[in-house]
Amino acid sequence: MNESRLTGPVRVVGVGLLGASIGLGLRAKGIDVILADASPTHLAIAVDYGAGRPAEPGDRPQLVVVCVPPDVTADVVAAELDAFPEAIVTDVASVKLAVYDDLKARGADLSRYIGTHPMAGRERGGPMSGRADLFVGRPWVVAAHGGMSYQDGSAIDDLILDLGATLVELTPEQHDAAVALVSHVPQVVSSLMARRLIDAPHASVNLAGQGIRDVTRVAASDPELWVQILGQNAEPVAEILRGYRDDLDRFIDALENMEAPGARRRVAEELFGGNTGVERLPGKHGVDRRYSSLIVMIDDRPGQLARLFNDVGEAGANIEDLRLEHSPGAQIGLAEISVLPEMQQHLTDELAARGWRIAG
Amino acid sequence: MNESRLTGPVRVVGVGLLGASIGLGLRAKGIDVILADASPTHLAIAVDYGAGRPAEPGDRPQLVVVCVPPDVTADVVAAELDAFPEAIVTDVASVKLAVYDDLKARGADLSRYIGTHPMAGRERGGPMSGRADLFVGRPWVVAAHGGMSYQDGSAIDDLILDLGATLVELTPEQHDAAVALVSHVPQVVSSLMARRLIDAPHASVNLAGQGIRDVTRVAASDPELWVQILGQNAEPVAEILRGYRDDLDRFIDALENMEAPGARRRVAEELFGGNTGVERLPGKHGVDRRYSSLIVMIDDRPGQLARLFNDVGEAGANIEDLRLEHSPGAQIGLAEISVLPEMQQHLTDELAARGWRIAG
Repeated sequence: MNESRLTGPVRVVGVGLLGASIGLGLRAKGIDVILADASPTHLAIAVDYGAGRPAEPGDRPQLVVVCVPPDVTADVVAAELDAFPEAIVTDVASVKLAVYDDLKARGADLSRYIGTHPMAGRERGGPMSGRADLFVGRPWVVAAHGGMSYQDGSAIDDLILDLGATLVELTPEQHDAAVALVSHVPQVVSSLMARRLIDAPHASVNLAGQGIRDVTRVAASDPELWVQILGQNAEPVAEILRGYRDDLDRFIDALENMEAPGARRRVAEELFGGNTGVERLPGKHGVDRRYSSLIVMIDDRPGQLARLFNDVGEAGANIEDLRLEHSPGAQIGLAEISVLPEMQQHLTDELAARGWRIAG
Repeated sequence: MNESRLTGPVRVVGVGLLGASIGLGLRAKGIDVILADASPTHLAIAVDYGAGRPAEPGDRPQLVVVCVPPDVTADVVAAELDAFPEAIVTDVASVKLAVYDDLKARGADLSRYIGTHPMAGRERGGPMSGRADLFVGRPWVVAAHGGMSYQDGSAIDDLILDLGATLVELTPEQHDAAVALVSHVPQVVSSLMARRLIDAPHASVNLAGQGIRDVTRVAASDPELWVQILGQNAEPVAEILRGYRDDLDRFIDALENMEAPGARRRVAEELFGGNTGVERLPGKHGVDRRYSSLIVMIDDRPGQLARLFNDVGEAGANIEDLRLEHSPGAQIGLAEISVLPEMQQHLTDELAARGWRIAG
């Protein structure tokens, strides 16, 4: 067990995915974690799951982490500030300015509150989805304001570092603009695309390939949660959507007059702009520039992947990323293996020598 | 080698990804494949790669498959109809009505031509990306029209079945409407989303997670190819985009007046509509309803995946789909393994008994 920075106890209010994961991560460091939740059932599950213990009279938490839905976050933060007048309080809601403004309007003690937002999540919710390592290596935004002392703020930094996340300091406004762009607007764009499928003929949706699946994946997200998030970040999201709509108007106009001078050029420029934009995204995604990939054909039989990864391990390579492509009914699948560039040729040779069919 | 339906020879004009894959697939069935390409270099690569042989004087192909870019497809089809007056001719361009109308306007012999479109592709292009199994299990649309006899049309069916694809018969209009929805509009939506990233602050793009990566993945596609595709299918694409824009207008309006009566309900309805739409997509994607998944934590060390898949194989389970999640710098990754629902509990127990940490 690594040494922790926090001394604790840490009180976690709300034991859904994020609260339970925070509890599990801190318990793994030996910190005393106090759990609270409006649902006795959720609380009992989270305690059984090892995320912490129930509250007791006289608890004096060092830090309170509020992990409740966005529309009640400010209420709960204000109540916790009142209930624990010596504690530092933070929250993990995905919108930051609305909570801050709300607390300020109530006259809450902002010298003991700073909001944060861990950029981690899963498609599943609830305490049973919690994972001690949910935050490892992920950005965790601290929505800094000038009202808290440097010394008090260190408890929040310690929380983030104890959970293995990467601390990113932004103002609440910067945070909200950033998540509007990289999270909230993509959600809207994806949901509106998926809506087009509602009345589509069967014959059309049956031709769907990986492209539309990727574009619409997040359209399966929980609408009730997203109404809260979008409601609290409406203006930054609307501003980006207006720019998106301007592009869309130009695009539709060009398509409607495809033989007009400049129409094809305009379509091409919009598409080239998409190339430029997507290249700005960091990290691994599809073909990652930091890794080289090779595609191996695998028969759809038990044990084939095991044999493949055995052979990769024996070749001395570490798999950095992996995509498995397999059409329903097909007898052959494809495994796209990403490795460090210097390993690619060696691994290709080794796998080919062991009889694997390398596709590209 | 399985028996082929086609007798051949089959002439493939254009040896990019699709042409080379068709050649490789037919060669694997022992069919005589004749290759042609405007680029002598591409042709030589494809021949070396085993996709077929160069054309010779006196070749009398049974079937000609035109696999050239959309904007020259009609020209090449017309030329092939003239050059091989006994051959059936088809093409694989991703838009069907424009080619058909163009050929009709030229007075081409439509009793020997039907267009097709295999719903298969890869992010890579060129003959070296070709794969004999590219079409296995994929839909392959035949854009039927009344001008060809049933008997002559069987050569096209045979091509599709010999390559392992699933034959889907649609009119050219139905095809173009279908791909507008499931391929062309998602491309536009994704490219316009990615454009929003061009001038974004570094701090914003650094918070990007899997959601925006998925939404913008196809924005990396080749703009020159897509200008051709969109140009030939402009009206069906524009029609769907107009419906999308109506939704977007309503969405922006609701966000701009979030406190107005009904605004939240309107946002929720748009998002619920996205849920409904995405559920219409068939097949495997993310959390597939036909499979159950379990998430296993793996250390970032060589051999861990091999050990995991060994254990899965020994437990008697076949991996139907797999996603590997691994944050840069993190010491722990997650493997989401999809198996048949009846295997899930057994596999969970078996893996836990072998010391694997099951996360959900």
